[in-house]
Amino acid sequence: MNKDNISKSVIRRLPRYYRFLTELEENGTERVSSGKLAEIMRSTASQVRQDLNCFGGFGHQGYGYSVTYLKGEIAKILGLDKNFKAVLVGAGHIGTAIAAHMKFENLGFRLVGIFDNNQSIFGSKINELEIRDVSELQSFCADNNIDAAFLCIPKDEAPEIVGSLYSSGVRCFWNFTHYYIQGDYPDATVENVHLSDILMTLCYSMNEAVEKNEQS
Amino acid sequence: MNKDNISKSVIRRLPRYYRFLTELEENGTERVSSGKLAEIMRSTASQVRQDLNCFGGFGHQGYGYSVTYLKGEIAKILGLDKNFKAVLVGAGHIGTAIAAHMKFENLGFRLVGIFDNNQSIFGSKINELEIRDVSELQSFCADNNIDAAFLCIPKDEAPEIVGSLYSSGVRCFWNFTHYYIQGDYPDATVENVHLSDILMTLCYSMNEAVEKNEQS
Repeated sequence: MNKDNISKSVIRRLPRYYRFLTELEENGTERVSSGKLAEIMRSTASQVRQDLNCFGGFGHQGYGYSVTYLKGEIAKILGLDKNFKAVLVGAGHIGTAIAAHMKFENLGFRLVGIFDNNQSIFGSKINELEIRDVSELQSFCADNNIDAAFLCIPKDEAPEIVGSLYSSGVRCFWNFTHYYIQGDYPDATVENVHLSDILMTLCYSMNEAVEKNEQS
Repeated sequence: MNKDNISKSVIRRLPRYYRFLTELEENGTERVSSGKLAEIMRSTASQVRQDLNCFGGFGHQGYGYSVTYLKGEIAKILGLDKNFKAVLVGAGHIGTAIAAHMKFENLGFRLVGIFDNNQSIFGSKINELEIRDVSELQSFCADNNIDAAFLCIPKDEAPEIVGSLYSSGVRCFWNFTHYYIQGDYPDATVENVHLSDILMTLCYSMNEAVEKNEQS
């Protein structure tokens, strides 16, 4: 399979396919038609068939797709079997929510360290993982070949933290801060979550909806 | 100004313009060139001029843009002056993070109520706002003309909560659950934050980066 031929928009839909297939599997569903997948994906059956054909197609005409097989193939394309080793920096509310509730092992990562600069929480645990002193972050990452970091820290702390992560080999960042990592490290792989930008977008849509209602 | 002519992609960039202009204003910068804005926006000066021309253009050749004026105009386009009344449902880690740290008044919303179903936290406060019993949610929203709800609850609780919010007039949702609100309420305005989808996308990019490195 040549992944270079897969468009960005197909890739962006894969996590959603994966999520729905996981739900189907949990409900004991063994096979699913492209029509049913389309319904769940809010798409069309032909779009679904086209998406899955990008990967060589996993279905049989009139017989549907095997849920478990399809889920497994999508997992491989996404690299969810890679179990990248990750640390989380910043055990405040967002960091704790992420460390406590996300099923990393299903999402391609293995959380192996949590760090904070608040010494009153050093040693306390989230999901069996001890919160460590952030001053040990750099050596921990170098010693343990850490691949990724989840940044749940204030923006002004981010440049120094990212600098030490980068210098110990970390190249992958899930960034909840407003620090622009790729400006300083162009070869970093980054996903940003800018909650305030999303809320402003919601405000715009809400405002539009209100204005349309007033006009009609 | 006719907002209908503004493309979706320009709109999507506006929160970022707004955020950077806020930072410039906080740093005491009074005027900014399209070149400087382009640098901050990781864009080109001509793209920036084109974006801002959509709104009638706020700059003067060779003189740049007034930071405060431009920020104000973008705020108006986004509707940030509307102060939509919002409630937050689910005061766990994510909900608490959002209630405690987001500057809603700059983002178009006013948080006026926090609800949870855990009676051991009823009455405790986040940013001066008392956590209330979720059984009072529907009457509170109807009595207070609530516009929006931020949903930080488990997926299986979402259908019932959204149902009672909708029936008391709420049409705008910031949805951290995996419940598909628009499937049941097509006229709702929704922004979803699917953290696990974002993490899988990061995994894919990381995996791609690793494979490229191995090939080179």
